[in-house]
Amino acid sequence: MDATLWIVTLVGSAAAALTTAAFVPQVIRVWRLKDARDISFPTFVIFSVGLAGWVGYGTLVESVPIIAANSLTLILALVILLLKVKFDRAAHPRPD
Amino acid sequence: MDATLWIVTLVGSAAAALTTAAFVPQVIRVWRLKDARDISFPTFVIFSVGLAGWVGYGTLVESVPIIAANSLTLILALVILLLKVKFDRAAHPRPD
Repeated sequence: MDATLWIVTLVGSAAAALTTAAFVPQVIRVWRLKDARDISFPTFVIFSVGLAGWVGYGTLVESVPIIAANSLTLILALVILLLKVKFDRAAHPRPD
Repeated sequence: MDATLWIVTLVGSAAAALTTAAFVPQVIRVWRLKDARDISFPTFVIFSVGLAGWVGYGTLVESVPIIAANSLTLILALVILLLKVKFDRAAHPRPD
């Protein structure tokens, strides 16, 4: 691997790790507050569909890092979505 | 462009459009509620740094779609972060 490819791989891996790990504190915050009113439901639905698309893209181009990073982010996004539905229902009989 | 490459480009473009557009309703929700307590501050800081990394990666591999999609998502993430700081400060003299 030459120096340029090494830097490209490093920057891409760091970026992927950060944009995936970012959603861990959001899961923790919603879980601790037992509240997700300010979280946008459509945001996490559209984000999840998009992430599933990235997993499909990674499968087509046979890139394990793209599949892995986006699968993990998808799991975190779905957890945030499920917690939102759960806590919205607990707060209001009809979720807003 | 052969059929396989066309499908790969289509799936990748759709995925990029969705993971970027997803954050528009989150900006709108925080703006309307004038509240972002449930939004995780570290999530949007780490996400923004990661997105800046993706812009750097796109620059290294000379991919305009990667630069464009991640720059737009970065702008949306920074707007959410700024609104959170603004509304947290309005609600509490010391943001939690």
